[in-house]
Amino acid sequence: MPPRFHAPDMDPTPGTVRLPESEGRHLARVLRLAPGARVRVFDGRGAEWEAEVAAIAAGLVDVRLVAPVAPAREAAVPVTLGLAVLKGDKMDDVVRDAVMLGAAAIRPFVATRTEIGLAALGRAGRAERWRRVAVASAKQCGRAVVPDVGDPVTFAALLDGAGPGTARYVLVEPSAGTGATPAGTLPRPEAALVLVGPEGGWTPAEIAAATAAGFTPVTLGPWTLRADAVPLVALTALAVAWGEA
Amino acid sequence: MPPRFHAPDMDPTPGTVRLPESEGRHLARVLRLAPGARVRVFDGRGAEWEAEVAAIAAGLVDVRLVAPVAPAREAAVPVTLGLAVLKGDKMDDVVRDAVMLGAAAIRPFVATRTEIGLAALGRAGRAERWRRVAVASAKQCGRAVVPDVGDPVTFAALLDGAGPGTARYVLVEPSAGTGATPAGTLPRPEAALVLVGPEGGWTPAEIAAATAAGFTPVTLGPWTLRADAVPLVALTALAVAWGEA
Repeated sequence: MPPRFHAPDMDPTPGTVRLPESEGRHLARVLRLAPGARVRVFDGRGAEWEAEVAAIAAGLVDVRLVAPVAPAREAAVPVTLGLAVLKGDKMDDVVRDAVMLGAAAIRPFVATRTEIGLAALGRAGRAERWRRVAVASAKQCGRAVVPDVGDPVTFAALLDGAGPGTARYVLVEPSAGTGATPAGTLPRPEAALVLVGPEGGWTPAEIAAATAAGFTPVTLGPWTLRADAVPLVALTALAVAWGEA
Repeated sequence: MPPRFHAPDMDPTPGTVRLPESEGRHLARVLRLAPGARVRVFDGRGAEWEAEVAAIAAGLVDVRLVAPVAPAREAAVPVTLGLAVLKGDKMDDVVRDAVMLGAAAIRPFVATRTEIGLAALGRAGRAERWRRVAVASAKQCGRAVVPDVGDPVTFAALLDGAGPGTARYVLVEPSAGTGATPAGTLPRPEAALVLVGPEGGWTPAEIAAATAAGFTPVTLGPWTLRADAVPLVALTALAVAWGEA
């Protein structure tokens, strides 16, 4: 497949699209493509086109749309992942993997045992960084949809976040022994919101609050997983359980 | 759970066990445990005991076995992963994840597009390193079984490697379009051998050879995955398909 570029403002009417500056730089400086080169552009909302580099000038790149192409298949059940912010750069990997495995949206949040607060996350520009990671992952894995990555919120705000018709799950450790449901046995819903806790796990009060808010405790097999592997394993397990893989 | 240590020579008869040197060092120097501390020891073949540190002398640690404990549940379908050796340290992560997700054994091999040869792998002591990673992962994730990690072999040697009663699969990219079977729909076998290719993918000759040797081409959903995420996604998908998670 030719290299893919994200053009969020793509409007097929005029036939040419100006790439965002960072995407133009990637095309011209990193990949060193020249006018005439064949590429793909996608708008991040599901549209993808074959295109051709039309002009490169002063760091700005215009591409000419050639023909629409069928985008990669999206999951039939949109899954929103509520992710407790992990330490250091681990969250970058988790966002990358979640996009790769088809998450519909990502809602970072701060749990009791999360080691960084909302203000510090904001000052560090972490949400903007995760959005860039999401775009990069979509480019790489072939999705024409870039999942929305929300600004970090509190756990309480997240509990209120699901629309009607959305099944709600909170992933718990196998040792929790709360009679949790194995992910592989969950019936297929219209849409799902799945909460993943921080490295140190949920507090009992958080599990109680989630259950009271209508979330079902769910386990992922008998294994004790690394926190940064949980989203990837969860998305895979649900995709198989719901006939998507 | 108390800290866990690997005691491959554990023999419950005399009631005390000397830990291997590296495990003793971890207990005494890193975790700074003293005589009397409660620990767990497991033999890597499925036996696990509650134990108590009995003596620490000259870097050697003896523990007294207190009572056997029920080990973590192992998968009902033993899955052997044939892993094309990945670049750099990625293989360490893949071995760690494969142990965490219940692989029964790991068979590293060199494919046509693998960027390192058998001789170089041997000189670098990579198999010994992966075995240490497997032990560390078993300690962490709670398994009492340490999967056997083989010495790297050729792809041809691996094709001959499955015993009778073992279902054989070769993971292919969704774009391969060879009419491959989705992993989530595979019927549950007695045992399975699953081959995962290198970063650059299989050559057509390798897929043909695997098919001729009785391997079924299998895909993991519609996604294009990072090579180092494939084993984790594959083990999860098969575990769900076969009712283990």
